[in-house]
Amino acid sequence: MQMNEMILVSVDDHVVEPPDMFRRHLPPRWRDVAPHVETREDGSDVWVYDGNEIPNIGLNAVAGRPEDEYGMEPTSFDEIRSGCYDIRDRVRDMDANGVIGSMCFPSFPNLCGQLFSRSSDLEAGLAILQAYNDWHVDEWCASAPGRFIPLMLPPIWDPEAMAAEVRRNAAKGCHAVSFSENPSKLKLPSFHDEHWDPFWQACSDEGTIVCLHIGSSSKLVFTAPDAPIDVLITLQPINIVQAAADLLWSPVLRKFPDLKVALSEGGIGWIPYFCDRVDWIYSRHHAWTGQDFGGRLPSEVFLERIVLCFIDDPSGVVNLDRMDIDRVCWESDYPHSDSTWPISPEMLWPAVGDLNDDVVNRVTHRNAMHHFRYDPFAERPREECTVGALRASAADVDVTPRSVGRRLEKKTGSADLLSIPHKGMT
Amino acid sequence: MQMNEMILVSVDDHVVEPPDMFRRHLPPRWRDVAPHVETREDGSDVWVYDGNEIPNIGLNAVAGRPEDEYGMEPTSFDEIRSGCYDIRDRVRDMDANGVIGSMCFPSFPNLCGQLFSRSSDLEAGLAILQAYNDWHVDEWCASAPGRFIPLMLPPIWDPEAMAAEVRRNAAKGCHAVSFSENPSKLKLPSFHDEHWDPFWQACSDEGTIVCLHIGSSSKLVFTAPDAPIDVLITLQPINIVQAAADLLWSPVLRKFPDLKVALSEGGIGWIPYFCDRVDWIYSRHHAWTGQDFGGRLPSEVFLERIVLCFIDDPSGVVNLDRMDIDRVCWESDYPHSDSTWPISPEMLWPAVGDLNDDVVNRVTHRNAMHHFRYDPFAERPREECTVGALRASAADVDVTPRSVGRRLEKKTGSADLLSIPHKGMT
Repeated sequence: MQMNEMILVSVDDHVVEPPDMFRRHLPPRWRDVAPHVETREDGSDVWVYDGNEIPNIGLNAVAGRPEDEYGMEPTSFDEIRSGCYDIRDRVRDMDANGVIGSMCFPSFPNLCGQLFSRSSDLEAGLAILQAYNDWHVDEWCASAPGRFIPLMLPPIWDPEAMAAEVRRNAAKGCHAVSFSENPSKLKLPSFHDEHWDPFWQACSDEGTIVCLHIGSSSKLVFTAPDAPIDVLITLQPINIVQAAADLLWSPVLRKFPDLKVALSEGGIGWIPYFCDRVDWIYSRHHAWTGQDFGGRLPSEVFLERIVLCFIDDPSGVVNLDRMDIDRVCWESDYPHSDSTWPISPEMLWPAVGDLNDDVVNRVTHRNAMHHFRYDPFAERPREECTVGALRASAADVDVTPRSVGRRLEKKTGSADLLSIPHKGMT
Repeated sequence: MQMNEMILVSVDDHVVEPPDMFRRHLPPRWRDVAPHVETREDGSDVWVYDGNEIPNIGLNAVAGRPEDEYGMEPTSFDEIRSGCYDIRDRVRDMDANGVIGSMCFPSFPNLCGQLFSRSSDLEAGLAILQAYNDWHVDEWCASAPGRFIPLMLPPIWDPEAMAAEVRRNAAKGCHAVSFSENPSKLKLPSFHDEHWDPFWQACSDEGTIVCLHIGSSSKLVFTAPDAPIDVLITLQPINIVQAAADLLWSPVLRKFPDLKVALSEGGIGWIPYFCDRVDWIYSRHHAWTGQDFGGRLPSEVFLERIVLCFIDDPSGVVNLDRMDIDRVCWESDYPHSDSTWPISPEMLWPAVGDLNDDVVNRVTHRNAMHHFRYDPFAERPREECTVGALRASAADVDVTPRSVGRRLEKKTGSADLLSIPHKGMT
């Protein structure tokens, strides 16, 4: 296999929602309370909902921006690449990067819809969340058949409503849901509480994979108020190990044996170390902690049930034989600052080029197709889905960085993030 | 090389301080305020200092206890193995485990002496801390020449006093100091503040290695109040990645190029992933964050300056070629629950047995000797320092688990730890 023969499906990208998204999907009764976009005096665009303003942070839409113009400042739609919010340009940006399929996490509602859970009127919140899901499935994804894996948001304030929304979306062909890596940090019950059982049961019944994205606890790990932002950017992905441990030692995986969970943007380089660690703890401590995995090891259960996801992780790829090769998926993370766009194939190939073709195919697309119930080949022949074929069709897409002429005056520190509540920066 | 030919030096063990420790080392003026041991109504022994009671938590002294009697309950001296606090029995327990050298972290003062920093009279606090260090160096370590690497505690409330104490102890041959993995969490300035420069300078001048032990921020990472204790035990070591990132992106390593830092009990399995990550972040973000490592990569600076430490970490050992083989040290962690005592050689050998002898010697003892300025061979011939030789001399030591007839009535959850302030459980 050559680099251009890879078929790339990314199970982690992000949409910056376009201002008109609710127009066709919200019943008239709720139109006055729907989130809408306003332009602030500084020229930045914000979503406004229920008295809250949600800016679009620079690092969340830096695709196509020069690296010395990255930053934490709020942005306007005309400062970000149109592929962030325009579905036609998004598809062309995917083509230019050789990516056939993509699953898009939300931006302004937060990673698992936390914003809607803070609605003063939760009936309105549910209607708006459902409109969001309808827009995502019926408009964003449906505009480009065969190019997107739909991903729904759950009404996290009500497990029965979550279950109903999972079933409603599954009936429409959406089999992935974004949930919180740690609902306890959102002041909701933890994974250890049976509170969530109706939700887990619905996902299990419908074959809907639960995606826990880094940052979806709305809690960043701060080392110190004066720590430079590099510290936070370093720690953000590896903090998913907290969710991994929480979930593994909780009853969830053992109680719902058909449930699938993905650690979105979680990386894979830490997995062998984590597996060694949990098995040692189990052997040493289960006699007094009461944990029981039957005749199995915790690492076996973990690797068998968790879909692992990585963007660019050479030390993880080297250790693929310590994971379940059928449960490792690739990500592009467009348009965030960790994204490898527009050179994803060039970044990925050195890590996987020496593996056998079957392993490359699993990691680049087959595992994603299986676990997320997605089939691009139903829409176009396989040979037209390769990196080379897609890029050939997008030779006219300009991927050179475009300056917007703004540059931070001061260094951004971790403490600057404290003033931007409820936003990840992944 | 065979297993019995290894020479083992552990750079992380723990002493449970004996009740009479201050008798010979504290000026009369302070004897009335010195910490002392009292027995509570439940039969457990506690240290009492300045109105605070500090229990000895079960997991901190489980060596020799059956695994179904592990737990978080307070203990008394007669319930724990005498090697925890008695220097003669400690040496015999080391012999029985084939360990020639050991560096012992404190117990009741917390990992970097936090207890003394909370003294209502800091003049008394300093006198008591100095007495602690004198006991540790002149009594605990000096009782068994050639068997211990001395480790001092710093008066963390005053960087100038820290520098003076570093110099005072260096003159006595102590070249290791325990400091906090994150002083910001102790309500002190962070690594990013020049506040600590006198301390870093003294350590740099004196060739004193700064040991950052997991848990020395006095902050545990809790996922949820109802998370089982297994979650916390899993996450405790990997949280050192926070200190690693904090230190690497701070000015410290670049400002003090001769300073050495050890990540005590930090493990090594996560290192290759961490190195990939920081280099990617540097290449992608330094243009706007302003980080500058000259012509080098952050991972190069990290690996060149940080001494890495592991107890039992098979996936880390497999990736030793991604680290600096001259800066990886082994640990035993006696008598904590992560310890491999009394089968440390049997646990370590399968991981290192296939490496060449030179690498095994570096990891098991040569690196420790170099970075911690310790030389057991000055006291006894090398051939008498091997696992086989030491164990042959300790054939009469009984290492079978000894029941104390107590067993937890209920499961311990993470929340139970919240009631035990300032204690790690590593």
